Amino acid sequence: MDVTYRVERLVPGATVRVGSVDVRPGGKGVNVARVLHALREPVLLAAPAGGETGAELRRELAGLGIPARLVPDAEPTRRTVTTVDDDGEATCLVEPASITSWAEVLTTVENELTEARALVVSGSTPTGVPPLGMRALVRAGKAANVPVLVDTQGPALVEAVEAGCDVVKPNVHELEDVRPDHDPVRAARDLTDRWGTVVVVSRGEEGVMATTPHGTWVVRPTQAVAGNPTGAGDALVAGLARSFARDEVTLGTFEETLREAVALSVAAVHSPTAGEVDLAAYDAALGSVMVTNLDGVG
Amino acid sequence: MDVTYRVERLVPGATVRVGSVDVRPGGKGVNVARVLHALREPVLLAAPAGGETGAELRRELAGLGIPARLVPDAEPTRRTVTTVDDDGEATCLVEPASITSWAEVLTTVENELTEARALVVSGSTPTGVPPLGMRALVRAGKAANVPVLVDTQGPALVEAVEAGCDVVKPNVHELEDVRPDHDPVRAARDLTDRWGTVVVVSRGEEGVMATTPHGTWVVRPTQAVAGNPTGAGDALVAGLARSFARDEVTLGTFEETLREAVALSVAAVHSPTAGEVDLAAYDAALGSVMVTNLDGVG
Repeated sequence: MDVTYRVERLVPGATVRVGSVDVRPGGKGVNVARVLHALREPVLLAAPAGGETGAELRRELAGLGIPARLVPDAEPTRRTVTTVDDDGEATCLVEPASITSWAEVLTTVENELTEARALVVSGSTPTGVPPLGMRALVRAGKAANVPVLVDTQGPALVEAVEAGCDVVKPNVHELEDVRPDHDPVRAARDLTDRWGTVVVVSRGEEGVMATTPHGTWVVRPTQAVAGNPTGAGDALVAGLARSFARDEVTLGTFEETLREAVALSVAAVHSPTAGEVDLAAYDAALGSVMVTNLDGVG
Repeated sequence: MDVTYRVERLVPGATVRVGSVDVRPGGKGVNVARVLHALREPVLLAAPAGGETGAELRRELAGLGIPARLVPDAEPTRRTVTTVDDDGEATCLVEPASITSWAEVLTTVENELTEARALVVSGSTPTGVPPLGMRALVRAGKAANVPVLVDTQGPALVEAVEAGCDVVKPNVHELEDVRPDHDPVRAARDLTDRWGTVVVVSRGEEGVMATTPHGTWVVRPTQAVAGNPTGAGDALVAGLARSFARDEVTLGTFEETLREAVALSVAAVHSPTAGEVDLAAYDAALGSVMVTNLDGVG
């Protein structure tokens, strides 16, 4: 759950009165599900949920109409408290994540995959997920013959690629962390060439760079995008998942897939809340996204 | 609910990883009830409780074995998030308090008073309490013929005194706020002379000053007290309530009442957690508290 506190100013050591409190479902997986739901795509969120914060998550997702299989967990679902001061400066307090229900979560994902057209695995790895947990999730998706898209970091990102996932979406730092190379194109190309994975690298305001076995693309918004960048990466993943779920992604359509996904992330920036997209902004952004094939293959 | 986050350092504008999370029932009324419960006094906590945080409060109080009448409220119970960094510096984020169940809370207090020997009203006034809400609580106590002790601030403190409550426990700032006078003895004496209220002024490490219709007392710990001052005032109130509930407080016993209450607040400082008291520290402190009658009447 994402908690936002409006404060005049965050002064370390002081007692700070909170002006208003906003509590809503958050986290990368939830954001991806919310964007797909906003696009009227059938989506199912599978996640552990524990304690009163887990109950709150369950209630809020039901209120948003997002179908979910929330697996009861002995650890309370974590909260992230962000203070936003009068100058707009945000300070984020991130609770540690820990789960006890890994086995049940994996079983739930495996069971639900019989109805699925794609599997998205998003977020950091909580304590309680065993080594090769990510591999088990990717393999479950492969066994169900659906495309698997992964947005994570560190060892789990390497695990996902090595297990044969179809798409990863690191940002520049996450990519450099697993493939130390100051040139992100070369680092992404290396992963793609070795494992066949489509690597879509999010680069903030600069847009996206993508490597596939068939080429390398750069995607840029042609207009400056102002707003809240939180959740833009999740909207990008949602857009990619939508295309891959439709069997739409072929060599000829990959540029359109990138265009739509980046336009969605632009629309997410326009929305003040992570996990929401402005559909009018999406339509507008579709025409202002420039896709360039770096090697003329696509 | 009091939430404590251990952090390395709270840097405004940064993403701060929380090392550990501690969640426990908090607030002045809860602390008073916890101290009385630790002293094996029969106590009943009446309070509004809403949302998942209210459910958490209910569960935690049950776990502590503290009897409570928690009135369902449409507003979520507030949380207070305190970050404590590696240098021990605490930053406290206080959510606004708002309730919808005032009428039911008042009725609950009125009903439970038939079994009570004292009424303690503690804490700030949430939005949703009508003007003269404090007066209604004090009058309920007077109608039930029990002593009423109030620990609050601002207009509600004035209301409590004017409604004839038996004891108020402002700190120096709260007293000065309602009786602007740089001399706290004169300010307290003024309230006592005009309304008959016993005024016990908490002054942190300097101890306590008390005015009654029969005299003025200064109470000091004779040894420096190191520890966590949060909840010391609540332990003081709990100690006063215990004595007043026993019909023990007469002119001859008031010094002993003050000694015990201040010793309890010393014991609370020795405990790392607000609302808990170290009973061994209490026994030790009893002998090291010095009570002085400023006018030789007591």
